[in-house]
Amino acid sequence: MTDTVVMAQRRVGLWMIGACGGVSCTTALGLSALARGLTPTTGMVTALPPFAHHDLDEPTAYVLGGHDIRTGDFVTAARELHERSNVFDERTLTACAADLTAWSANIRPGVVYKPNSAITALADRTDMRQARTPREAIDAIQSDLKAFKAAHKLDQVVVVNAASTEPPFEVGEEQKSLDKLLPALDRAAPAALPTSSIYAFAAIDAGFAYVNMTPSRGATLPALEELAKKRNVPHAGQDLKTGETLVKSVLAPMFARRNLRVLSWVGHNILGNRDGQVLNDPDNKASKVKSKDALLAALLGYKPQSIVSIEYIESLDDWKTAWDHIHYEGFLGTKMMFQFTWQGCDSLLAAPLVIDLVRLAAYAQRRGESGPMPHTACFFKSPVGVPEHDFGKQFAMLEDYFCVEPPA
Amino acid sequence: MTDTVVMAQRRVGLWMIGACGGVSCTTALGLSALARGLTPTTGMVTALPPFAHHDLDEPTAYVLGGHDIRTGDFVTAARELHERSNVFDERTLTACAADLTAWSANIRPGVVYKPNSAITALADRTDMRQARTPREAIDAIQSDLKAFKAAHKLDQVVVVNAASTEPPFEVGEEQKSLDKLLPALDRAAPAALPTSSIYAFAAIDAGFAYVNMTPSRGATLPALEELAKKRNVPHAGQDLKTGETLVKSVLAPMFARRNLRVLSWVGHNILGNRDGQVLNDPDNKASKVKSKDALLAALLGYKPQSIVSIEYIESLDDWKTAWDHIHYEGFLGTKMMFQFTWQGCDSLLAAPLVIDLVRLAAYAQRRGESGPMPHTACFFKSPVGVPEHDFGKQFAMLEDYFCVEPPA
Amino acid sequence: MTDTVVMAQRRVGLWMIGACGGVSCTTALGLSALARGLTPTTGMVTALPPFAHHDLDEPTAYVLGGHDIRTGDFVTAARELHERSNVFDERTLTACAADLTAWSANIRPGVVYKPNSAITALADRTDMRQARTPREAIDAIQSDLKAFKAAHKLDQVVVVNAASTEPPFEVGEEQKSLDKLLPALDRAAPAALPTSSIYAFAAIDAGFAYVNMTPSRGATLPALEELAKKRNVPHAGQDLKTGETLVKSVLAPMFARRNLRVLSWVGHNILGNRDGQVLNDPDNKASKVKSKDALLAALLGYKPQSIVSIEYIESLDDWKTAWDHIHYEGFLGTKMMFQFTWQGCDSLLAAPLVIDLVRLAAYAQRRGESGPMPHTACFFKSPVGVPEHDFGKQFAMLEDYFCVEPPA
Amino acid sequence: MTDTVVMAQRRVGLWMIGACGGVSCTTALGLSALARGLTPTTGMVTALPPFAHHDLDEPTAYVLGGHDIRTGDFVTAARELHERSNVFDERTLTACAADLTAWSANIRPGVVYKPNSAITALADRTDMRQARTPREAIDAIQSDLKAFKAAHKLDQVVVVNAASTEPPFEVGEEQKSLDKLLPALDRAAPAALPTSSIYAFAAIDAGFAYVNMTPSRGATLPALEELAKKRNVPHAGQDLKTGETLVKSVLAPMFARRNLRVLSWVGHNILGNRDGQVLNDPDNKASKVKSKDALLAALLGYKPQSIVSIEYIESLDDWKTAWDHIHYEGFLGTKMMFQFTWQGCDSLLAAPLVIDLVRLAAYAQRRGESGPMPHTACFFKSPVGVPEHDFGKQFAMLEDYFCVEPPA
Repeated sequence: MTDTVVMAQRRVGLWMIGACGGVSCTTALGLSALARGLTPTTGMVTALPPFAHHDLDEPTAYVLGGHDIRTGDFVTAARELHERSNVFDERTLTACAADLTAWSANIRPGVVYKPNSAITALADRTDMRQARTPREAIDAIQSDLKAFKAAHKLDQVVVVNAASTEPPFEVGEEQKSLDKLLPALDRAAPAALPTSSIYAFAAIDAGFAYVNMTPSRGATLPALEELAKKRNVPHAGQDLKTGETLVKSVLAPMFARRNLRVLSWVGHNILGNRDGQVLNDPDNKASKVKSKDALLAALLGYKPQSIVSIEYIESLDDWKTAWDHIHYEGFLGTKMMFQFTWQGCDSLLAAPLVIDLVRLAAYAQRRGESGPMPHTACFFKSPVGVPEHDFGKQFAMLEDYFCVEPPA
Repeated sequence: MTDTVVMAQRRVGLWMIGACGGVSCTTALGLSALARGLTPTTGMVTALPPFAHHDLDEPTAYVLGGHDIRTGDFVTAARELHERSNVFDERTLTACAADLTAWSANIRPGVVYKPNSAITALADRTDMRQARTPREAIDAIQSDLKAFKAAHKLDQVVVVNAASTEPPFEVGEEQKSLDKLLPALDRAAPAALPTSSIYAFAAIDAGFAYVNMTPSRGATLPALEELAKKRNVPHAGQDLKTGETLVKSVLAPMFARRNLRVLSWVGHNILGNRDGQVLNDPDNKASKVKSKDALLAALLGYKPQSIVSIEYIESLDDWKTAWDHIHYEGFLGTKMMFQFTWQGCDSLLAAPLVIDLVRLAAYAQRRGESGPMPHTACFFKSPVGVPEHDFGKQFAMLEDYFCVEPPA
Repeated sequence: MTDTVVMAQRRVGLWMIGACGGVSCTTALGLSALARGLTPTTGMVTALPPFAHHDLDEPTAYVLGGHDIRTGDFVTAARELHERSNVFDERTLTACAADLTAWSANIRPGVVYKPNSAITALADRTDMRQARTPREAIDAIQSDLKAFKAAHKLDQVVVVNAASTEPPFEVGEEQKSLDKLLPALDRAAPAALPTSSIYAFAAIDAGFAYVNMTPSRGATLPALEELAKKRNVPHAGQDLKTGETLVKSVLAPMFARRNLRVLSWVGHNILGNRDGQVLNDPDNKASKVKSKDALLAALLGYKPQSIVSIEYIESLDDWKTAWDHIHYEGFLGTKMMFQFTWQGCDSLLAAPLVIDLVRLAAYAQRRGESGPMPHTACFFKSPVGVPEHDFGKQFAMLEDYFCVEPPA
Repeated sequence: MTDTVVMAQRRVGLWMIGACGGVSCTTALGLSALARGLTPTTGMVTALPPFAHHDLDEPTAYVLGGHDIRTGDFVTAARELHERSNVFDERTLTACAADLTAWSANIRPGVVYKPNSAITALADRTDMRQARTPREAIDAIQSDLKAFKAAHKLDQVVVVNAASTEPPFEVGEEQKSLDKLLPALDRAAPAALPTSSIYAFAAIDAGFAYVNMTPSRGATLPALEELAKKRNVPHAGQDLKTGETLVKSVLAPMFARRNLRVLSWVGHNILGNRDGQVLNDPDNKASKVKSKDALLAALLGYKPQSIVSIEYIESLDDWKTAWDHIHYEGFLGTKMMFQFTWQGCDSLLAAPLVIDLVRLAAYAQRRGESGPMPHTACFFKSPVGVPEHDFGKQFAMLEDYFCVEPPA
């Protein structure tokens, strides 16, 4: 049986948590446009030559679905993003409308358990389900996932967390092992699991690969990592590295290798999409800022004074704009400056990476791999289980992963 | 015999071509300040942990000298740079004045053979020597170098080209082999060798390691590479990568690895030092722009539209300021922008790298190595014999060089 | 008779030279969208409160036509600008298509007399008319203008030069008075008038107000100024001040008033539209750079070192991007820096000003004014006959013009 | 008697509150350097031609003194600023050292009454005086001022508030009239007057002109304005407009006059001097941010979304660096961007304006003027009693003031 035949037969479900957001609708539009040959693979890492001849799923393989607590669908969300942020063209929107409409029928109301106020402020679906215990939420989510798989005769399903950022969640005793966590899931008490981890548990426990593109906890709790090993499920995260932090991860090593001492690194981010709105809440913002700031000390070997701010500026919509000012000292105590501004469209930067990660996760699962996927470190601000933050070295890990692959 | 004893005994001459320029006086001041424990090693690559425990020369090992066609010395030049560019502090200048004065006594008038007009415009030494043939120039230079070595009882001498940038020089038949070059050196005809190569020939032929920090030809002619092998002399070059191009060499790989298509890369450089003045001459500028622009296609795998300009702005003195605008395309044809501004002091960025290269060249010669030094690729815009331009990968070559070193 | 009735009856022709360019199609689309109430007056100076209650023409008053040497029309040009530069929305394009189509029927092939090579490179209309003498060209142009006026029963016609920038044209004897110019118009010799002035002559001689939004000569020759007085025609120019130069004209006075000494002012402009393409030709660029640079000395009272570059970067299309670096000296000799980047869409910045100027020119003509319109100085880089370059003071001249207006 | 003779005889005291800060020492060094002919008047507004021929005091007229709660003097402070911020040159510091030393003898320990914690954190003088009532503080301050005037046989004294920024202080009943305030000064209760107003009261009540270069309350309370009228004392303030806000006050009118709709204006300021340190305290920062942000709505006629942040970045010392991002809408709903970065040395920008204001205040007092000085609006972010924020119009007010002056 040849590769081509295998690919034609394989059907992969892509389940987006936060299905009505900018990243999800861009992912949907992008997959449809790619499948129809309407757009190049620009922005997709797995489309680069070193990764091209491996058994990664073609765009035609995918069926989309997802959960959301907000009213909407892929079509409406894509149209809104088009109008507000001036992205996508009419031709692509029209050509892909049928696919997006069909996939929108797979969107199910979100399931929540004691959600954070910044999140509930966004929720407007009347059929959203309030669970009384974490277990009840997990059951409802798994039921949706399994129905999706069955209805579309899918070979695999990958679940992606593209929901809004949660406040930080500290690991307690209950999250430290599966034994301790399981009984807690039946209690109507706070804090057994944050929402992102409830979804992650549901996915992993049901045997579906899981990708976390946000700084929320997701699968990064000892009990869930244990579960992933047990269920033989690969998972990847966390917090996609798409903009300012990506640049940091190539510039900081440059300063370090030239022995130029970074005195201060100031980064101000402004953006106007829903992510920006949720991050305006100080609790939710804390997760993000931590993730954006942490890599500096790791890359430099010392901790310079640093600021990372994220502010919501409505007029910018999806256009994340960042100004970074790096003050550094060179030879004989001479202070010098480097500044950059990043003007990128967040959803358009994230969506191709989501496709990359879904391809990599499904592939890893087919190869029988489970647990964190260290070769995906180059995609994340806080790569699970990988201390390396240098983008060049992280990328080499991805190349190595494919080099050592045994021939098919 | 311990390392300490060896280092105490070794005396290394550092001969600067262009001794009265900003880089030379900063190198002199820096070496003196380092030897006196007045300044940290910030900006020196070879001071980083991976390179620290090898037998590289200590700052106390050096004696400086050099050639110049301009009147001046290390003291005057350093004082002028201090006043015009607002670098160095009074304390360091005062504390190191005696060393700089002593070393200034070793500066000899330049030797020229049919020089370019932009260069001669700078020449104001009445005792500058006009040679009638390249051979006459070489003899005069070698005589100076040998006298320097003898007078100071030096174990080694490293010759560094820190003179102003020459116009491009195309390789002809005469430069293709030593056999063809040697007779031509005796003819009073144009173009047998550009000035930088006359100096390089003199150094290498006399057995001295040679470092070319400029985009001028220097040792990069087949006949001179042959000579270096024959005389067992290591040499390194060309064109120090200190500012905008350094940043290019870390940013371009980032775009490539994320499959973001660079549509255009515009770089405007302004500076007001003597280098800027010479580069204002279109012929001389051509060498530099070519060196700054070439690496983009190599790093991206395709050639985006690009502009590199260098303009002389007197008020900036040694503060090279660059603005780069990178226009790139992401997913679904979305155009995005990245801009940076670099504000660095040229001489202060270059001088510690000169010290690094001198340390590496003297070390290589002691280890019996000859010819180009590929492990120094990370220092140069156009590394001799190394097609790699990715700064991260170039740096790994330097690390590898020291890792595979046999124990002392 | 009320104002409303008057306005309802008045019909004004707007004749664009360069009708198929970005500014012309944006002006057409804008006027149609304003007339249909689909867009606010943002960007139009004459829509501001101080100018609102004067008898300026309403958007519904206009009929458009024009000349071009390139194939195309308002519809195609607007659609192309939409697709390449990501401006305008589908809704507006669709709603205004009928108006643009109707107006496109009024576009006539251009008339040329010994045109510049950068201009002819753009010409692709097979029915373009080559005149054998300037007079022949003038006759052909006037015939088109008069036919337009008659066909649409227009009360007034305003002719706007929105064609590509010409090379500089030095005033000779023939252009110094009407007496000397008139006989020269019949000679098939070079240089009696540049193309822009042939069109200006045709318009003014036929009694039509004339606006020059480019740095080309247009009506700024003594003989043509004489003609305008004689024919009682108002005219305005030259070179719309839309971007970097506008900012210069508010920032330079700030430095002057604070007695901060500007040491150097560097401005690099990159753009990718047809204007950028024509300006890539050094001759044509010269006119523009001169116009952009001249005001600095006027505003500061001394001439700092300055650079103004304009480079064609295809990927930017209509998005003119400028980086300006201002180096200045403050108290006790302290050097400081100010930098700005301008990212504006050229056609969208120019079009509302074209509408403003057409409104002001038609109004001036109705008031019996003739010759240059000094109150429009705030619109231009090189305002005809006005030495003032301070934008604030220029704006006050416009306010004064309307304040001293006698009651209707 | 001629002007020259008058000026030679006149002796003016300049009393700095916050005498050991960066602005005070720069003012001292500048006045000494100007008096000795060592530096040009760059940065001084009153040195411009329109103001040159009026009876403003020459640099030689001044004697300096002041209060501070921190240990230090003009010499030490200037030396520290030189070393940390890389400003001033050795030559000037040496030449002026004697003047600065002499004036330092006039510095007196500060007097405080219930100070804010951010302020007291800076206080390290052991002889600082704690007053038990506002009246006690006023008496102590006046005693110092009068002693200074007598000791140096001064004709006039101008008191300048150059102390750290206080938290906002809301006007209550007690501050609304002198009648209500006077009895409250004897009570050991909080909130009768903030520290800055205690000093302002002391100065004005003693008949000395008062200038407030900070956003603190100073003389801007109804009761103090009443006092100034009664005592016939001119005063000016508040909050010097030296950097980002100055630029705002020329750019915002540009957008308004072009009818370009500002959607958002984001300004991030970073600086590392003592002002920055005090502003790191949220209470103290509030005064400053309010002052920097307020003028936008006044200049535009509507309130766009805006952010003004000020962050303390130690490595920058006195180099205030600001990034402003202005997002605006042009014709047909097109969104465009303007960004600027300001890199200026705070003390060097402020000091010449302090000298300007002291000259203007002493001059006004000699002319018998009292109360706020509206013609100084162009110097301040929140000019007392002047609603105009357009820098061009404010400057015209200063020009008018001198134009209408009766001939001497």
